[in-house]
Amino acid sequence: MALHPVLIAGHWQAAHAAGSFFAENPATGTPLTEEYPTSAWDDCDAVLTAAAAAASQLRALPVEKYAEFLDAYATRLEARASELVALAHAETGLPVSPRLASVELPRTTGQLRLAAAAAREGSWALPTIDSKINLRSVLEPVGPVLVFGPNNFPFAYNGVAGGDFAAAIAAGNPVIAKAHPNHPGTSRLLAEEALAAILETGLPPATVQMLYNIASADGLRLVADRRLGAVGFTGSRSGGLRLKAAADAAGKPIYLELSSLNPVVILPGALAERGPKIVEEFTTSCLMASGQFCTNPGLVLLMAGEATESFVGAVAAKFTAAPVNPLLSAGVAKGLQTSLATLRSAGAELIAGGEAVSQPGYRFANTLLVVRGEEFLAAPEQLQTEAFGNASLFVIIRDPAQLVEVLEQLEGNLTGGVYSDTKGSDDELYEAIAPQLRRRVGRLINDKMPTGVAVSPAMNHGGPFPATGHPGFTAVGIPASLRRFAMLACYDNVRPARLPASLRDQNPNGKMWRLLDGQWSQADLAC
Amino acid sequence: MALHPVLIAGHWQAAHAAGSFFAENPATGTPLTEEYPTSAWDDCDAVLTAAAAAASQLRALPVEKYAEFLDAYATRLEARASELVALAHAETGLPVSPRLASVELPRTTGQLRLAAAAAREGSWALPTIDSKINLRSVLEPVGPVLVFGPNNFPFAYNGVAGGDFAAAIAAGNPVIAKAHPNHPGTSRLLAEEALAAILETGLPPATVQMLYNIASADGLRLVADRRLGAVGFTGSRSGGLRLKAAADAAGKPIYLELSSLNPVVILPGALAERGPKIVEEFTTSCLMASGQFCTNPGLVLLMAGEATESFVGAVAAKFTAAPVNPLLSAGVAKGLQTSLATLRSAGAELIAGGEAVSQPGYRFANTLLVVRGEEFLAAPEQLQTEAFGNASLFVIIRDPAQLVEVLEQLEGNLTGGVYSDTKGSDDELYEAIAPQLRRRVGRLINDKMPTGVAVSPAMNHGGPFPATGHPGFTAVGIPASLRRFAMLACYDNVRPARLPASLRDQNPNGKMWRLLDGQWSQADLAC
Repeated sequence: MALHPVLIAGHWQAAHAAGSFFAENPATGTPLTEEYPTSAWDDCDAVLTAAAAAASQLRALPVEKYAEFLDAYATRLEARASELVALAHAETGLPVSPRLASVELPRTTGQLRLAAAAAREGSWALPTIDSKINLRSVLEPVGPVLVFGPNNFPFAYNGVAGGDFAAAIAAGNPVIAKAHPNHPGTSRLLAEEALAAILETGLPPATVQMLYNIASADGLRLVADRRLGAVGFTGSRSGGLRLKAAADAAGKPIYLELSSLNPVVILPGALAERGPKIVEEFTTSCLMASGQFCTNPGLVLLMAGEATESFVGAVAAKFTAAPVNPLLSAGVAKGLQTSLATLRSAGAELIAGGEAVSQPGYRFANTLLVVRGEEFLAAPEQLQTEAFGNASLFVIIRDPAQLVEVLEQLEGNLTGGVYSDTKGSDDELYEAIAPQLRRRVGRLINDKMPTGVAVSPAMNHGGPFPATGHPGFTAVGIPASLRRFAMLACYDNVRPARLPASLRDQNPNGKMWRLLDGQWSQADLAC
Repeated sequence: MALHPVLIAGHWQAAHAAGSFFAENPATGTPLTEEYPTSAWDDCDAVLTAAAAAASQLRALPVEKYAEFLDAYATRLEARASELVALAHAETGLPVSPRLASVELPRTTGQLRLAAAAAREGSWALPTIDSKINLRSVLEPVGPVLVFGPNNFPFAYNGVAGGDFAAAIAAGNPVIAKAHPNHPGTSRLLAEEALAAILETGLPPATVQMLYNIASADGLRLVADRRLGAVGFTGSRSGGLRLKAAADAAGKPIYLELSSLNPVVILPGALAERGPKIVEEFTTSCLMASGQFCTNPGLVLLMAGEATESFVGAVAAKFTAAPVNPLLSAGVAKGLQTSLATLRSAGAELIAGGEAVSQPGYRFANTLLVVRGEEFLAAPEQLQTEAFGNASLFVIIRDPAQLVEVLEQLEGNLTGGVYSDTKGSDDELYEAIAPQLRRRVGRLINDKMPTGVAVSPAMNHGGPFPATGHPGFTAVGIPASLRRFAMLACYDNVRPARLPASLRDQNPNGKMWRLLDGQWSQADLAC
């Protein structure tokens, strides 16, 4: 069968292929039949040139056009939902329902529509006017955005449909999507609908382009290219850091989501008050989708004692009894194996799972490890190795002072949670540890597990390095996520007719919030 | 005479000195008498440890305390104005009046007070509440901020008193200032007042620390240290890029202001309409303070023709007739010489100045160069070499198409300006070039020179790389400049008493703008 074409400048065209690959069904381990190209640099060069031209064209269009496209795309994805879900299931092993059909696809179309609404309304760009000196500024499109999607969300983080995509388009930028090679077919269906929506709404054809795979060296070259505006990346720490170094050296903004253990501290009062409930919550959170979430609870801190022993035992029993679901790929299974070996070599003791399971496809026994606080403090770096998948490490802490010491050793994480009792017996300890945890995580959580990431204006799906590349930005949540793909554009003494609509005296839609002489307002500028 | 001590953890203490230096009076070329230390790593280590502790203490204080300190500091600087101005004059050669006494010092105290007001009011941090799911987020202090001040603003950009300093403190962070070795005495006086204001208002003593000088290698180590939160840098491109690489590799946010030519396009209609006025405006802007501004007009694009020839001749005559003022240092004079050699070797022709002037101190003849558009396009990189000082390069453009070509070759700049006539004859050309210029500059200007940088909420003193390290941030302008020194902190299901004041249901001061369920509001959250 011929290689699938790639989407360049509005056309599906034969790739300049440096190689090819097949996806695999990870639930069965069998290769799928469609063959996809690994693009050579010629394709990268072509998408960059087309995207740069599209960027100029997009800037000249009213924001309503970006919004129309995003809405039309969402509607098209819904119309093709069953085909999308079936293929994503085949390529990822993730359950059709509820996960793909009822959670992830609706989340994806919801994000596209929220981004459309944000583009229409325009407040995301923080338009600011100083009328006394006729100085005005607003966030404007940064230029073509290259989006690398991860393996674990075939829709909601897909380079050609997910959160980074929606944010980049809503901010007025063309997107070059680098699909994840684990789900090329899903990405192809998405890109087909994106192109159809482009044609339907009259956007520049190169507003959305997609390559299935590229060589690492071409990735480094792409992110540094002067035709590119910015980069969004969700994936492994090692791959992300290589791209970051290349982008940084070229002065190119790159937003990365790299890795996170999402520490959860369970305080003694909470354990005494509702231990069995927390066992349930933790088990559900850690094993859902085989734990393959950026916000999986991979590290749990517990105070030594009988209640903790019984908690650990109960979780281990649950882990052993729970079904073993497929991992996303052979690579994930191998990575999990390697990470567990690192953790064990640093002193972590296996109390459940620990081995691949001889079932079809790629599966790994639900795995639990335990280590004492002293051991953690002796090898904090090794013991913060992310074991991406259905695994978690429990650290048994001697006393409150040691808990603070352990927290002080934590790297930057996306989330950090604390369970405490409702009667106040944990409050003193909470007060002692919350400041430590706060500055090491993007989202501080009380009394629940970290897995869920609501698409809300108040969400922070971000955090200090190395969870992400910059602690000031979130990848999820509109309007803030749009601001990543923008540059600050100031207009000094610029004549009224030459100003962008958002900065003219008249509010362009009566709804846009603008900072007028120091106060947020939806009004026109009083002359 | 003994080495001056450094300011560490609230005490002036003897430096661990790796060397020492004297400042010089650049107007006379004579060394000043005070001897200052170049600190060894031990001092860097000490300020980092003290700053990390101070960061924790500051977070626990109400924002009112930061504001009190900034206000008290401003008042103290005013009380010591004449001594400050006299010493800054001796160390920089900048005029006492109006520059230092009537412009720069008032600007500096004004910035401190604006930052204080922003800290009190709190809207800078974009507090955001989603009441339906009890998710809340706000920008919080990022941790100790290291500020490298430049040579050209002894007050307004000083690491221990300038815009980065004010923004970092107002955002709740301790500052480690690396003074510029050209004006150590000025920095010492400022730091003395900062310490006095700290003691007066009860902030942690290590809220402000200062070293006079450090080795380059220690600078690289400092910016990567895990105790540090972020870095602000204003200075040369070469030094800044080295620091950026070190900070980037450590995942540390660094905000740099590096270099800028500030291209000015003077369209034919404007020249015909008000050529002599533009000659005056340009000459004043380019020669003020010997051109030693980040926003000096270093590149002027003109359409070939008689009017341009006469414009160039008039400017050359003005440059030759104008007095020659001192440069900031021997280093600036040498850098200017080197840059001019680069420009000339790439084809630029000298039509005024070009040599050091044999007067006392470091002075360089007011210098003008001219190059044709074809030559510029043949060596665009070399011909964008910044000649920091009283010099500018005129590019004579053949036709509109070449003007666009030249603009497309421009690197990122802080500003870009266009002069056009008021009758509309330049409008077509303006429309053709504005999009090209817009995306290459942080601030797009009409009909005036770029030198002035108002401290306004709408200011962007920033721009695309390599003018700065990130196109989304401004170094000048409150509240936006504060957001550089912050991390996004989200609170998910966190109990009410544990929330920061800015995120509780009740608006903490009745004035803070918060994004409540999608709308900006100063109200309490309705329960």
